[in-house]
Amino acid sequence: MSDSTPKADIGVTGLAVMGSNLARNFASKGFVTAVHNRSYSKTTALIDEHGGDGQFVPSESAADFVASLATPRKIIIMVKAGGPTDAVIDELSELLEPGDILIDGGNALFEDTIRREKAAREKGIHFVGCGISGGEEGALKGPSIMPGGSKEAYASLGPILEKISAHVDGEPCCTHIGTDGAGHFVKMVHNGIEYADMQLIAEAYDLLRRGAGMEPAEIAEVFAEWNRGDLDSFLIEITAEVLKQVDAETGKPFVDVVVDAAGMKGTGTWTVQTALTLGIPVTGIAESVFARGLSSSTKQRAGAGNLPGPSQPWSVKDRDAFVEDVRLALYASKIVAYAQGFDEIVAGAAQYDWEIDRGAVARIWRGGCIIRARFLNRITEAYADNPELASLLFAPFFTDVVSKGQDSWRRVVAGAAQSGIPTPVFASSLAYYDGLRTERLPAALIQGQRDFFGAHTYQRVDKEGTFHTLWSGDRSEIQEDGHTPGVNAPVKSGS
Amino acid sequence: MSDSTPKADIGVTGLAVMGSNLARNFASKGFVTAVHNRSYSKTTALIDEHGGDGQFVPSESAADFVASLATPRKIIIMVKAGGPTDAVIDELSELLEPGDILIDGGNALFEDTIRREKAAREKGIHFVGCGISGGEEGALKGPSIMPGGSKEAYASLGPILEKISAHVDGEPCCTHIGTDGAGHFVKMVHNGIEYADMQLIAEAYDLLRRGAGMEPAEIAEVFAEWNRGDLDSFLIEITAEVLKQVDAETGKPFVDVVVDAAGMKGTGTWTVQTALTLGIPVTGIAESVFARGLSSSTKQRAGAGNLPGPSQPWSVKDRDAFVEDVRLALYASKIVAYAQGFDEIVAGAAQYDWEIDRGAVARIWRGGCIIRARFLNRITEAYADNPELASLLFAPFFTDVVSKGQDSWRRVVAGAAQSGIPTPVFASSLAYYDGLRTERLPAALIQGQRDFFGAHTYQRVDKEGTFHTLWSGDRSEIQEDGHTPGVNAPVKSGS
Repeated sequence: MSDSTPKADIGVTGLAVMGSNLARNFASKGFVTAVHNRSYSKTTALIDEHGGDGQFVPSESAADFVASLATPRKIIIMVKAGGPTDAVIDELSELLEPGDILIDGGNALFEDTIRREKAAREKGIHFVGCGISGGEEGALKGPSIMPGGSKEAYASLGPILEKISAHVDGEPCCTHIGTDGAGHFVKMVHNGIEYADMQLIAEAYDLLRRGAGMEPAEIAEVFAEWNRGDLDSFLIEITAEVLKQVDAETGKPFVDVVVDAAGMKGTGTWTVQTALTLGIPVTGIAESVFARGLSSSTKQRAGAGNLPGPSQPWSVKDRDAFVEDVRLALYASKIVAYAQGFDEIVAGAAQYDWEIDRGAVARIWRGGCIIRARFLNRITEAYADNPELASLLFAPFFTDVVSKGQDSWRRVVAGAAQSGIPTPVFASSLAYYDGLRTERLPAALIQGQRDFFGAHTYQRVDKEGTFHTLWSGDRSEIQEDGHTPGVNAPVKSGS
Repeated sequence: MSDSTPKADIGVTGLAVMGSNLARNFASKGFVTAVHNRSYSKTTALIDEHGGDGQFVPSESAADFVASLATPRKIIIMVKAGGPTDAVIDELSELLEPGDILIDGGNALFEDTIRREKAAREKGIHFVGCGISGGEEGALKGPSIMPGGSKEAYASLGPILEKISAHVDGEPCCTHIGTDGAGHFVKMVHNGIEYADMQLIAEAYDLLRRGAGMEPAEIAEVFAEWNRGDLDSFLIEITAEVLKQVDAETGKPFVDVVVDAAGMKGTGTWTVQTALTLGIPVTGIAESVFARGLSSSTKQRAGAGNLPGPSQPWSVKDRDAFVEDVRLALYASKIVAYAQGFDEIVAGAAQYDWEIDRGAVARIWRGGCIIRARFLNRITEAYADNPELASLLFAPFFTDVVSKGQDSWRRVVAGAAQSGIPTPVFASSLAYYDGLRTERLPAALIQGQRDFFGAHTYQRVDKEGTFHTLWSGDRSEIQEDGHTPGVNAPVKSGS
């Protein structure tokens, strides 16, 4: 580095596709960008191929890389989650000074981020766990960015991130999510919602194909049409592209030459596992993760040839009406998936002491990320109208959408059950919706069972207290909370 | 302890209800039983109240307790899972000798059991994580017992446990499950299945009540009747008892005075979280856990008053036919829940290197435990006929049950969707079943989406290899596994 080289505004270490694209994005927006990679060849390749994008400062060693940055230094780590991330953090921490900012731009588990932030803070270093969504193209042209960490770190880092993020209606798709792991938590839920969104689209496609007998090219047109309405979104748009793709080799629809086993990389699983710990029903996301798992259960699927199905396939009489039913079922189920995702964010914020503005989260998801959609404006508006909204489904706009769509939704789920087309997320979302609005759930019976076999006690609807029925005795009821002298609370067993 | 007191065959520490009942069970079967509790008053209370059950050897201190046991000592720990269990293990480990056997009879997470077994083994002590199901009454009269740990430990411990376990057709409901955490793992899955079983019963009740307009007392008769057929099981039996119970204070059905918020203690959550890690779809168990969560979401449920439902309730014309439909739907869904649970056991065994005999697991669940059912004989037979069975659904007996029941199952799920009665587990189990038997799943579309936005690649149905389409380029396909020189595998992003 010559003496005339200015100190870099920001550094990126880890120059695989996501890292290089992010570095190019910074440079193209006018930031002097320090770049570093474990093997130097990737660094020189970046400069060789894309040096013209802006001003890069390459370094071969971590020490030179750190030295090339203006203080407080801002370094984005773009390496594999887990061990490799920890190794880079350890190496850089030795070289940084108090006040510097280390940013993890990978898909780290938020609990790791909480741990890392704490360790860095003890050294006076700001650690920012930062969710970045949008894939390779988003990284290059403007992703949705979800940074956690301290407000102080965001004060100097935020303006840079906001500048390279996607913009919608002039607003950046980047905001400070909350302290320590909040950014990675929200990114995790984003990915969980993405799983549900993708599975819902897959179910809609399957219904149109097998229910209405439409071909992929026709269905591509349906999705392209849907993309001009309420469902306007990146995933609907690319679905149309994928469905209209024809395999050059066989002349068949692309979707017919691809093995129907969906892969996954873990964030969907984390979203559901975390929701379970928090006690939040995320049925749509869970069914999406399970649907991918089922699709990859080679051994089970191979043996399923003898399982009987219904005698009659779906006899769709009015194709246009059916397509509209599926569209409305997709829309309603999608609202449920988002409602559940935001419930998880609220529960996470309460558990980990984060102040998360749900409206701002919806706002920064409008552009750059995989789940970007017109629909997110409505979510932002819903939380603006009522920041305490207990469920997205209660916002008048969404209640209205479901109200208008529920007949279609019910017809689709019922028809799919009758005709043997699996719609796990459509069906599960409807069951959740109906469960939510049910005044008396059969959970009271479950409480009775639990009290019967495990003396787990129950509450009564008509008075305060905790009660137990002497099921093995005279079946009288006793009060269990110490108000009845001489009665000991039983020790619980079972579930 | 006087010199004439014989050394005890087995010891129990932790004398809350489960522990005392287990101790009484040992003593009543002729075992000299050492008993110990942190506060001695519980020990003396046990002797005072139930000393006549058999030969007890009470000790006030842990040292005396250990000294009162014949070697190799066998001590069952019946204290709270987590910290308290570790504390007791630490205390006793100091007092034990190599070859002694320490048994954790609580509901420990199997990963804790793996850790504890390893630590104990390093001291030469056998550690047996032992699932015990059956509640208080089971503990006293004969539970289902699922011991893990070494074969060597089981050789001396097994005969004692088998003697106090429930017996069905002369066979004990206790068998060696596998090494280290296998016993607690299987007990965890048992509890997960129990969640699904209970939710299925709750959904059936809700359908009979709100769909067919039946009263709890009438539904109790239906369950009592079902209990004389294929569904014969403890949970169906106690459901009839709970439903016929009348609240003495109000004269209302008991189930109507109980708050409809179902509690839970964690094993269901663990079952689903573990299945997610193992990649096994356990949709029925997950939906059961979520249904309990939803029932307890006070804030959400309170705000749901304005959510619109269907205009028409279910108009059941032939009540007997409807009851039979619900019975068959329950039976089919239950088979799916067990199939998924056994899939999780297989995956766990593969992951943790356990040799688990699924037929033996079904056999020891026939008696003593909460999910005991006539139906389990069929599972044992299915695995006896084909030890490699890839799914329980493929066993001819179960394929036949589903085949005969599927029209009913589909009618029930469809009708529930149309009429707004939530049946998350009925619906989810049917969707899983239909997914399993679907020859081409829409997962191929998901693979296309993933390749589009994240270059995640895909496999083709017609040739080996890993492929990627240049979606942002000329949309040609490239091979990604190194067979095409000069093409680098893209670095993945997103999910």
